[in-house]
Amino acid sequence: MADYKDLDRKVITLSKQVVKMCTVSGSGHPSSGLSLAHLTVALMYRVMRYEPKNPWNTGADRLVLSEGHAVPVVYAAYCDLGGVVGSADRPSALSFDDALTLREADSVLDGHPNPAIGFPFFDSATGSLGEGLSAAAGLACGARLDGSDKKIYCIIGDGESREGQIWEALDFIVDHKLNNVVTIFNANGQGQSDYVSNQQTAETLTAKLEAFGLEVRTIDGHNWEEILPALTGEATDKPVAVVAKTVKGWGVEEFLRSNYHGKPLKEDQVAQAMADLDAKAAELGATEAADVTAGQITAPASVGRPGGEAISAGPVAEALAACGLESALESRKLATRKAYGAVLAAMGADERIVALDGDVKNSTFAEYFAKQHPERYFEARIAEQNMVSAAVGLAAGGRVPFVSSFAKFLVRAYDQLEMAAITNANIKLCGSHAGVSLAADGPSQMGLTDLAFVRSIAHARRNDGAPAAYFFQPSDAISAFKLTELMANLEGLCYMRTHRPEVPLLYEESEEFTVGGFKHLIDGEDVAIVASGYMVHVASEAVKILEETGGLSATLIDAYSMPLATEEILRIGDDCRGQVLVVEDNYIGGIADELTAAAAASDMGVMVHSMFVRNIPKSAKTPEAILQMVGLTAQDIAATCQGLFDTSEA
Amino acid sequence: MADYKDLDRKVITLSKQVVKMCTVSGSGHPSSGLSLAHLTVALMYRVMRYEPKNPWNTGADRLVLSEGHAVPVVYAAYCDLGGVVGSADRPSALSFDDALTLREADSVLDGHPNPAIGFPFFDSATGSLGEGLSAAAGLACGARLDGSDKKIYCIIGDGESREGQIWEALDFIVDHKLNNVVTIFNANGQGQSDYVSNQQTAETLTAKLEAFGLEVRTIDGHNWEEILPALTGEATDKPVAVVAKTVKGWGVEEFLRSNYHGKPLKEDQVAQAMADLDAKAAELGATEAADVTAGQITAPASVGRPGGEAISAGPVAEALAACGLESALESRKLATRKAYGAVLAAMGADERIVALDGDVKNSTFAEYFAKQHPERYFEARIAEQNMVSAAVGLAAGGRVPFVSSFAKFLVRAYDQLEMAAITNANIKLCGSHAGVSLAADGPSQMGLTDLAFVRSIAHARRNDGAPAAYFFQPSDAISAFKLTELMANLEGLCYMRTHRPEVPLLYEESEEFTVGGFKHLIDGEDVAIVASGYMVHVASEAVKILEETGGLSATLIDAYSMPLATEEILRIGDDCRGQVLVVEDNYIGGIADELTAAAAASDMGVMVHSMFVRNIPKSAKTPEAILQMVGLTAQDIAATCQGLFDTSEA
Repeated sequence: MADYKDLDRKVITLSKQVVKMCTVSGSGHPSSGLSLAHLTVALMYRVMRYEPKNPWNTGADRLVLSEGHAVPVVYAAYCDLGGVVGSADRPSALSFDDALTLREADSVLDGHPNPAIGFPFFDSATGSLGEGLSAAAGLACGARLDGSDKKIYCIIGDGESREGQIWEALDFIVDHKLNNVVTIFNANGQGQSDYVSNQQTAETLTAKLEAFGLEVRTIDGHNWEEILPALTGEATDKPVAVVAKTVKGWGVEEFLRSNYHGKPLKEDQVAQAMADLDAKAAELGATEAADVTAGQITAPASVGRPGGEAISAGPVAEALAACGLESALESRKLATRKAYGAVLAAMGADERIVALDGDVKNSTFAEYFAKQHPERYFEARIAEQNMVSAAVGLAAGGRVPFVSSFAKFLVRAYDQLEMAAITNANIKLCGSHAGVSLAADGPSQMGLTDLAFVRSIAHARRNDGAPAAYFFQPSDAISAFKLTELMANLEGLCYMRTHRPEVPLLYEESEEFTVGGFKHLIDGEDVAIVASGYMVHVASEAVKILEETGGLSATLIDAYSMPLATEEILRIGDDCRGQVLVVEDNYIGGIADELTAAAAASDMGVMVHSMFVRNIPKSAKTPEAILQMVGLTAQDIAATCQGLFDTSEA
Repeated sequence: MADYKDLDRKVITLSKQVVKMCTVSGSGHPSSGLSLAHLTVALMYRVMRYEPKNPWNTGADRLVLSEGHAVPVVYAAYCDLGGVVGSADRPSALSFDDALTLREADSVLDGHPNPAIGFPFFDSATGSLGEGLSAAAGLACGARLDGSDKKIYCIIGDGESREGQIWEALDFIVDHKLNNVVTIFNANGQGQSDYVSNQQTAETLTAKLEAFGLEVRTIDGHNWEEILPALTGEATDKPVAVVAKTVKGWGVEEFLRSNYHGKPLKEDQVAQAMADLDAKAAELGATEAADVTAGQITAPASVGRPGGEAISAGPVAEALAACGLESALESRKLATRKAYGAVLAAMGADERIVALDGDVKNSTFAEYFAKQHPERYFEARIAEQNMVSAAVGLAAGGRVPFVSSFAKFLVRAYDQLEMAAITNANIKLCGSHAGVSLAADGPSQMGLTDLAFVRSIAHARRNDGAPAAYFFQPSDAISAFKLTELMANLEGLCYMRTHRPEVPLLYEESEEFTVGGFKHLIDGEDVAIVASGYMVHVASEAVKILEETGGLSATLIDAYSMPLATEEILRIGDDCRGQVLVVEDNYIGGIADELTAAAAASDMGVMVHSMFVRNIPKSAKTPEAILQMVGLTAQDIAATCQGLFDTSEA
């Protein structure tokens, strides 16, 4: 029988540190960490092939701690190993005692895993539960593209396994044969407020995982003879799941008295905990054994990844022709969603580009990419949460993932989107069928809240000063094409909305689009109408109506970007008798709020008026009928413009 | 062998109608509907005990069509049965041909199930996939509370079963022994853009369902001998799932040629489809058989439900004392989240009140309710999507459900929240640990986007003219208490955010809080600070600092409600040298936007300034430290106030 006293000793050392870290920090989840002490030691000191001193090694195994609140034990190990944090150009090594900075304002040891603040050992922010396995799956997709044999280990809590996204991720892992993912369930039998349900016991989890198509290894999570073979044993042709039965608060009596979660020991309880762990060490005969050294950890070489200059789609005409859309430039009519698909397919010549879609690729037109680049297309089926988090993993692996579904269905993944923003993940989302113009399918399919939600995040800054999100609204196929290309080259989270209807082209191929840009489409004198996306076309009709019937001369601005050049737009409004009318086919919280706030902060005295979707829509047969229902037809817009002067000149 | 020719005939009649409906409408999903023709006929003409003429019968079985796009076949049947639509005080009966109004702007036959526009046969809007089974589970919880033996039938697509929420719902159904739910999977083998994955075949679904603890009946979904026993057979001690293998586009050759989804036949294809179905009828010998009549449908009597006058929590002191919080009124300090738990428990004396929580009841303090009213508390575990949709089902059953989790974790259920708003569901959400004041746990636990998202919906109107959502932000325990009581008595979707820290009481027990109200806490002359929730306390400190050091006299307003009385607040600001400063501990998109827009629309000339969370936070040990990190300390607020005058008087 092998001697594991060195590993036992390490468990004791780290467990003591976890208890201290949480008490010093005044918060944290020591009991969860202790349940994972053996698994963490096995992974980080024996099983994983990686370099604590070089977390940027692209060939190394990765650990995703989906059960984010258990992170103190990983921090303790990483500090013990002298793990490196910071950025690649400014790395710094941690020391054992650095673990005690847990949760301090200037520490990279955040309350939950958070790579964005300088902890590159992790690839995605976790802590909102159930999202890590999807990120692991994305990393696994990336590893396959890299030609790397790295493994991705993902630890999930048993209570956490209640989140449906876990089961979405498992379906995805089996579908795509991601046998490089080792999914580990920490079955300590306790959630936050209670013991776990019978639906989340080790036995039920095992049965579920087998039914989902995994090879399941159910083990004692504190027994090396079971842990090490389970984590390292050769896989069959199925992905492996390890269900580890563990003890929450292992080794410390105080934690074992009842369901104990999310509280540190009080200072006067720490000595007893240390004594408990010393007694445990004595019982294991591990008191005097030598510590495991980092020297036993091996790492593969870094693998090369595609890189290079700016990602380009090449000429618009060629890209469209490759998708059978060559007639669009002649007919000068194409839906923005089709342009999205075409440019994505064209950019696919660059191996960095990957795409995911949720069983609507023939509506979002991601299918153009899927057909031309099947090896870099990951069908995510009807499971949007997993899709967005998997993209985070792909981005962490150096790819530029484009994720598409109906804008409405991406609402399903808003928490995942927010976690991606916290991660500073370089992912690109395309929500199709946005606004009300999809008409007949009704409100369950209409993206109406995306402006408000993404704008909220877009105004937050990352710690490198960049916006946490960008938002784009193409109005025609050319702008959809160019903005998609722009997103591919813009570091960070980008969201674009496309629309269902076929619309006229407004721009020539040579037109350029920029972050913070807008287009001054029509120059008028009396009022500046600011529109985006599909509403640019409706507003354009309104301008004609005003000209023909009202005698008013209106400016038309295509506000396709957020961030928006609000000051320039207001200046244009200032030249239009100080009247700006924003028209949006979404609920409140978008461009109008953006311009209103800017107007309030300026001293130009421009009046910003707004029209948006003010009632929950229902089905109607055509875009025109639905616009009528929500009061956003060209006639409505013209009448509102007219009303501005009827009122202001009254 | 029984003769099912009448049922066969009905299948033919309805299938023809489905084909016509979609072609007339110009859109829709006829092939999905046809795959469900037999199951729909079985349920609506034989199995379900209900009254098509009285969809408000509280004792009747219910059908939840989670696979919402298949709705034309249900509409066809309901029209055929002369089903009643509209409202209980203005009912109207449909005729067979009314089915042809599908998706028209003035039809109650919306593109996807939509009870809110007058189709009371359904209980929840569906169409964003994967949500219906949770609503069915909520209906089942309600039925149990009613003492009704009704059954809830729920139809789910096989592709749809990829959504994790389905598996959350199944766990919930098994946990709560909701054997009154019959879950039916329509295994037609096709999704929208492709055939379903191996993970969603009838065989894999069967294995998964068995592992989840269901009794599974796998059948041919076009064979009466299998359908009827599967739907009506006595259950064992497990909930029943029926996996029905069906043919997408059954009976119409054009639909069978390839994967056919979401498209109607062209007009010139309809005649052939009718001929195909006539041939099918001939083959079945069902050409001349008499139609099934509605007379064969039986219904139980309506059951009584709790009702009555306004829901009351009684005196604050008694409610707090019942939860061991009696000292709070003396110490005048209590966290808003604790007050939420206490008032919820006190209101629990009214049987309409039910509660759900996602394994954080000891943090949200829903545990006070759970302890006092265990029969009306439904532990939803770590699965927020299911929790919110289950609440929609409970509300449809006449209960007033309160749903709690961390505000951040409710982001997980924003699509479910939006679908609840589309449903006009009378549900109440409480997001705890909102804003940045929870500090140490870091950004993965902080609710920062809730204002923007819920405000976006709150500005949309339901078709009865009411706001689609209300938003409340209590600043102390008394306002949390009173606002929770207010929500219980307010029809519609309400969202309240509570905070982690213990805070001083600002109000007396006698204080009243209203929709659209606010509190003028401190009267000053130079600037009006508008704050909500935790920030009221920080702003109050700022007022003191200004008084002590800056010589500025500031007004303080507690803006606890959205809708907000913006005009009155601006008038107060007008009296404060026209300067308003809004301070918020969330990302942009909340109160500041609300007041800025109102100021822009008024002619008072009030300047609205704002402070909000402008960077992605990380962990810090205390609320004070995190406020410092995001620039929202009392000192920051005071300095900003001071700066207004340094600038404006410069």
